Amino acid sequence: MKNFKTLQWIGDADGFLELTDQRKLPAEFTTMKCTTVEQLFDAIETLAVRGAPAIGVAAGFGICLAAQETDKLKISDALKHIEKRADFLAKSRPTAVNLFWALEKMKESARDFAEKNPNASLDAFKNHLLACAQEIYAHDVEMCAQIGINGEKFIPDNGGILTHCNAGALATAGNGTALSPIFEAQKKGKKFKVYADETRPLLQGARLTAWELQQAGIDVTLLCDNMAGALMKAGKVNAVIVGADRIAANGDAANKIGTYSLSVLAKAHGIPFYIAAPSSTFDLNIKTGAEIPIEHRHADEVACFAGLITAPKGIKVFNPAFDVTDAQNITAIITERGVIQPPNEQNIRKTICR
Amino acid sequence: MKNFKTLQWIGDADGFLELTDQRKLPAEFTTMKCTTVEQLFDAIETLAVRGAPAIGVAAGFGICLAAQETDKLKISDALKHIEKRADFLAKSRPTAVNLFWALEKMKESARDFAEKNPNASLDAFKNHLLACAQEIYAHDVEMCAQIGINGEKFIPDNGGILTHCNAGALATAGNGTALSPIFEAQKKGKKFKVYADETRPLLQGARLTAWELQQAGIDVTLLCDNMAGALMKAGKVNAVIVGADRIAANGDAANKIGTYSLSVLAKAHGIPFYIAAPSSTFDLNIKTGAEIPIEHRHADEVACFAGLITAPKGIKVFNPAFDVTDAQNITAIITERGVIQPPNEQNIRKTICR
Repeated sequence: MKNFKTLQWIGDADGFLELTDQRKLPAEFTTMKCTTVEQLFDAIETLAVRGAPAIGVAAGFGICLAAQETDKLKISDALKHIEKRADFLAKSRPTAVNLFWALEKMKESARDFAEKNPNASLDAFKNHLLACAQEIYAHDVEMCAQIGINGEKFIPDNGGILTHCNAGALATAGNGTALSPIFEAQKKGKKFKVYADETRPLLQGARLTAWELQQAGIDVTLLCDNMAGALMKAGKVNAVIVGADRIAANGDAANKIGTYSLSVLAKAHGIPFYIAAPSSTFDLNIKTGAEIPIEHRHADEVACFAGLITAPKGIKVFNPAFDVTDAQNITAIITERGVIQPPNEQNIRKTICR
Repeated sequence: MKNFKTLQWIGDADGFLELTDQRKLPAEFTTMKCTTVEQLFDAIETLAVRGAPAIGVAAGFGICLAAQETDKLKISDALKHIEKRADFLAKSRPTAVNLFWALEKMKESARDFAEKNPNASLDAFKNHLLACAQEIYAHDVEMCAQIGINGEKFIPDNGGILTHCNAGALATAGNGTALSPIFEAQKKGKKFKVYADETRPLLQGARLTAWELQQAGIDVTLLCDNMAGALMKAGKVNAVIVGADRIAANGDAANKIGTYSLSVLAKAHGIPFYIAAPSSTFDLNIKTGAEIPIEHRHADEVACFAGLITAPKGIKVFNPAFDVTDAQNITAIITERGVIQPPNEQNIRKTICR
């Protein structure tokens, strides 16, 4: 089980946010304090905290830090200040949908409080906002736990499970999405091996997933992404489980680049392929994965490593951050609201819109 | 076309071997002199020269360097010295079959000369050995050229070609194996794009293939290995072409790790998958790929990068250097003796044993 906190609020409404500094993993496990909104902005932007759910939770606490700047203001002015700071924090990462969702939720709650309690003390206002941020935190933990419970049955006892990127505890306030069923299976006493793709170019699998599984005492083996096929052929993989960044109404799922290849390989080897993601990942306004915009990132992520040149100068690079796995390659989608199997529009709406 | 020499002998029998120092690519293009057998041993061991054919050719010239150490010896003693030095050079890399083949060929030729000309001058002996090493060199260049001619028709005009690792000019004395048809297609005026997998963990694709294609003025794009599936799905790949390290009698082919995954992905997308390799790569004593021993390499190749830790300390690593692609996933095998299509035992014997 997770034996560290991805992030936590320390103290009362005048406290601060403590983060596991993911930039330093796996060489060093350290926590960092965010006592100002600027520090949190920097932490999100530079990936000290990452993973869509974790970013959302952190942003919630960011509003508590903003509230500490409102001393001697009237509630209505404090609200205006908070809204301004929320807009600032929203610029820390452009694509993480949970960031905007959490900030919106905090602003709404602040507006609601200010409307109903125009003469309340600032302390009461700050306490209210902290309670709201803690609720987002608790909801995230609960979402992870429920995905774990719903997905545990897919973790084969005495089997091998392959995962890609980091959809683990480090990406959430709780036990993660894709890794949560694995932690749950461990709790139930199942024995299994986890194989973690290193996940080029940014090595989230090597740096983060391998680290957190090792920390949790789970038998984990690291491999390069191009070794997954050979591992499957050798009969070592009984299930693949990964997260998702956005899922279309028909079940097509965008996730970290390399996920699509894994799904094709799993299918060719008759291995079940699972996606674990909260219901908030579904975008039912989008019919198929073809409509999901794919972010293409800077060539240097591939052509350099820690400042070292690994490819010829001026080389063209294909560097999409995500790819789309067709619903037909996905055995089931595990959500906190239930398991969608097989993933199709009808089954998705039945589970997600209930 | 290739505009550099992977290796070349400079001068007469008292000359030296000049190598492109592949350890410094792509950051720096430099050549290095090997004037002693020890220097060449070190160059092979530390991958300044690499690629099975290139290592064999270099070893041939290594015997010419050994012959320079025989001054004032009788021919029979010079022969003994050369045999001893060949045994030393054979220890530079344990698995490259061409290394042993070339050294054996040089020893045989030396023995033959010494037997027939016991009273010849040492100069005549050295000249004979240089001629023999140059013959190995020329044979390699010719083998590459013929693979290029035989494989050129598979390079789609206005298409995209994906390759993996480096089976290029840098791996041979000539234009390479998998890249030779690409250079030949360029000569014929075909327009196409080449996509080069970076090839983790040692990045031969990024460091070497991307470099030599860029040098040759070929439109080349680098990608991480896990992006190949997304690239195929996007319709950018019309053919895959790679080399091989060992091919069984039934056509199963061992090549750089990741090749098998590519073959499965190509099949799923209806993309032809070609292997280009000299006839010397076939091991007809081995019935299927299951009998090919797979070298597993050190964990640090995956868990570290240029001395930097990229994975948690003590992590278990799956790091096979090669995988085996089933004959049924291979559209054709391109050799200097002809194209084997489809690859099966009968077609292989017909082409290779003629």
